[in-house]
Amino acid sequence: MQNTDLQTVLAPILGDDKKHSFRLVIGNKNYSSWSMRPWLVMKAFGVPFEEIYVPLYHPDSTQRISEYSLSGRVPVLLADELIVWDSLAICEYLAERFPSQNMWPESQAARATARSICAEMHSGLNQLRSAMPMNIRASFPGKGRTAGAQADIGRVGEIWEDCLSTYGAHRFLFGDFSIADAYFAPVVMRFKTYGVSLAPALQAYCERVEHHPAVSEWVKAAHEEKESIAKFDQFD
Amino acid sequence: MQNTDLQTVLAPILGDDKKHSFRLVIGNKNYSSWSMRPWLVMKAFGVPFEEIYVPLYHPDSTQRISEYSLSGRVPVLLADELIVWDSLAICEYLAERFPSQNMWPESQAARATARSICAEMHSGLNQLRSAMPMNIRASFPGKGRTAGAQADIGRVGEIWEDCLSTYGAHRFLFGDFSIADAYFAPVVMRFKTYGVSLAPALQAYCERVEHHPAVSEWVKAAHEEKESIAKFDQFD
Repeated sequence: MQNTDLQTVLAPILGDDKKHSFRLVIGNKNYSSWSMRPWLVMKAFGVPFEEIYVPLYHPDSTQRISEYSLSGRVPVLLADELIVWDSLAICEYLAERFPSQNMWPESQAARATARSICAEMHSGLNQLRSAMPMNIRASFPGKGRTAGAQADIGRVGEIWEDCLSTYGAHRFLFGDFSIADAYFAPVVMRFKTYGVSLAPALQAYCERVEHHPAVSEWVKAAHEEKESIAKFDQFD
Repeated sequence: MQNTDLQTVLAPILGDDKKHSFRLVIGNKNYSSWSMRPWLVMKAFGVPFEEIYVPLYHPDSTQRISEYSLSGRVPVLLADELIVWDSLAICEYLAERFPSQNMWPESQAARATARSICAEMHSGLNQLRSAMPMNIRASFPGKGRTAGAQADIGRVGEIWEDCLSTYGAHRFLFGDFSIADAYFAPVVMRFKTYGVSLAPALQAYCERVEHHPAVSEWVKAAHEEKESIAKFDQFD
């Protein structure tokens, strides 16, 4: 009775909700930093889901995404009949749906700080995002260092240092792996691709993120992915 | 015993937490759309707070904000010893701190949708935000209509229509006033300033938002505010 075994294993996570069905619409694993975040959260916390892959910048990408969400963007979570879009709203939904998993840090102060840094990443750090787009397979050491990107790199270092020392016991940002680490994992990817030098404690944090099983699985898939987007694959 | 009376009135909101102290750091009421959002939530749900006003684009603005938050941006909530920054993280913190207030809609589906549209506003609709900055006192009818802004106006209409008809019973986006309405209130301000024509149902929604007591109070203060920012006060 394989199904029964599976239910037993999943019961602590899924509770009484036997009819769950999660499907996550994502873009290219090599490039789509926003897709990466909720995907990592679902993998890291053992939430089973079906992946719907829509390669971006193809002639039919927009049309295919619009089948799932009118926002026109990935990621989108299809949770039973419910459509939840945007990486941050998806993470909040998951955290609320599986409260025992502590996807956000457990203490109120740590959780408020985790939400603050995720929101800052979500609406800000624009120069880093535009000058150094995520490209896991590529190696562009020293590229993308606009003044704005440098300032953002400094700000990320400040955030990481503060969280690791205040809450993280120098493991993940808030101790155990949380939504906050998933939120900054694409920045870890960027720092590797663009050869950003970091203080030893921050470099060690990046390596812990890279070796997290969910991150390793995403990176491996990014390397195996066939589609590429030419305009992100070269630096002039 | 005025203090005892006040505690009695506030008890349902503040619970046993007698030593609360909330201070909200905000920018100019005329221009700072991100400040407006959590301020409206706190006013609308009766959370008492002290306002710390930092006029933006003054020579000492950055330095003054940095006294409260290293993110360098407003709003910042000082909740006792805790610093919470970014409008969305502040709203999540408040919703969690005062669960009986239903700052987010009560049903799981409505709440997930509310978070999705707030997150979309928070990280997207960039063309609307940059081409039609909030300026409550000004009147620039027909200005700022870039192609991108037009597309974003259409998307906002789509979001409002969907929420008002699915969840809102044609009152606020999810029925009662919620974080989602506070999140879109600065867009209502923009539509007025820039003379955006809307379908009657959407125009009626804008008027309900404008007449909400918290919004009226903010708008009145914006009109009375002495500081202005020249670069936002003219359109070429």
